[in-house]
Amino acid sequence: MPKYEIRFGGFGGQGVVLAGVILAKAASIEEGKNAVQTQLYGPDSRGGAAKSEVVISEEKIDYPKVDKTDLLVLMSQEAAEKYGSEIKDNSIIIYDADLVQLNLSGSFTPYPVRATKIATDMGNKIAANMVMLGAVSAASNIVSLESLLKIIEASVPAYAKELNMNAAREGFRAVKEIMGRRGGNEN
Amino acid sequence: MPKYEIRFGGFGGQGVVLAGVILAKAASIEEGKNAVQTQLYGPDSRGGAAKSEVVISEEKIDYPKVDKTDLLVLMSQEAAEKYGSEIKDNSIIIYDADLVQLNLSGSFTPYPVRATKIATDMGNKIAANMVMLGAVSAASNIVSLESLLKIIEASVPAYAKELNMNAAREGFRAVKEIMGRRGGNEN
Repeated sequence: MPKYEIRFGGFGGQGVVLAGVILAKAASIEEGKNAVQTQLYGPDSRGGAAKSEVVISEEKIDYPKVDKTDLLVLMSQEAAEKYGSEIKDNSIIIYDADLVQLNLSGSFTPYPVRATKIATDMGNKIAANMVMLGAVSAASNIVSLESLLKIIEASVPAYAKELNMNAAREGFRAVKEIMGRRGGNEN
Repeated sequence: MPKYEIRFGGFGGQGVVLAGVILAKAASIEEGKNAVQTQLYGPDSRGGAAKSEVVISEEKIDYPKVDKTDLLVLMSQEAAEKYGSEIKDNSIIIYDADLVQLNLSGSFTPYPVRATKIATDMGNKIAANMVMLGAVSAASNIVSLESLLKIIEASVPAYAKELNMNAAREGFRAVKEIMGRRGGNEN
């Protein structure tokens, strides 16, 4: 497996940092890969933007900085405008279709997932990041849903386990449903 | 201010990742610097080791990977043995004196802080990471205690705010007390 680079972009409070941490732990602790997870804080974060990056590889990771992504998760329009062009060919973009309008050209597979609405309907929009994690698993094969669920269970407080684990399952299902409708054999 | 590099080393469950996140946020959101916070997960993390790194700078940070540190926080003997030699000249080492025995030569200022015991005495050893954050502030000037407290308050659940904020205050005090006993004028 070559180096796989993932970026989560959104705004503060959406939990993109925790999403990155859980993805990195699932890939490493559960699946034996190496993972580096990075957040940058600067002028943008003072304006409310949030970004989290994960590099996953079977090799040792020497350069953890992410330039162009294999998989981009967008939870704000600002993030879409800033990171939408920094993608590799044939990459994957998962976006919250209620918060983001994609105006991109290029070669990518888009997955519109209504993460915030799904989480809100399940009881708390704070779990939108977990919906996105489930979607990442379904869209990419980079980590299994089972590995994610184990790490989510170990990472969130007891009272929040069920919501967060179910949110990940819903995100997984949402992407699989899109794949089914498209009739492809993408996964 | 040149680039300032900090590493937290310990084992899973001590909260070194959260410590790094809070330090990076305090330096950036509260104090206007740039900060990058990175975790590596690999074979070591599967064995229970945990590491978190922060780079703080007034300039844009192009290379977020930490080699040698200006400030090293040690919460396990394994981390001491692995990272103790990867320090710059005249660096600072803060270590949990009940968990770590320092066997290092070189040019550094050691601060033995009984973080786990302090946090346990205050009600929950889980706050040892916050003791260490307060100690970082007192030992280094890289971030003020006030900035840390604001980010801690915003980052932990309501029921845990008081414990965590007081733990940071205790860590700050512990280092200032060491400085006072040494009679130096280090800060």
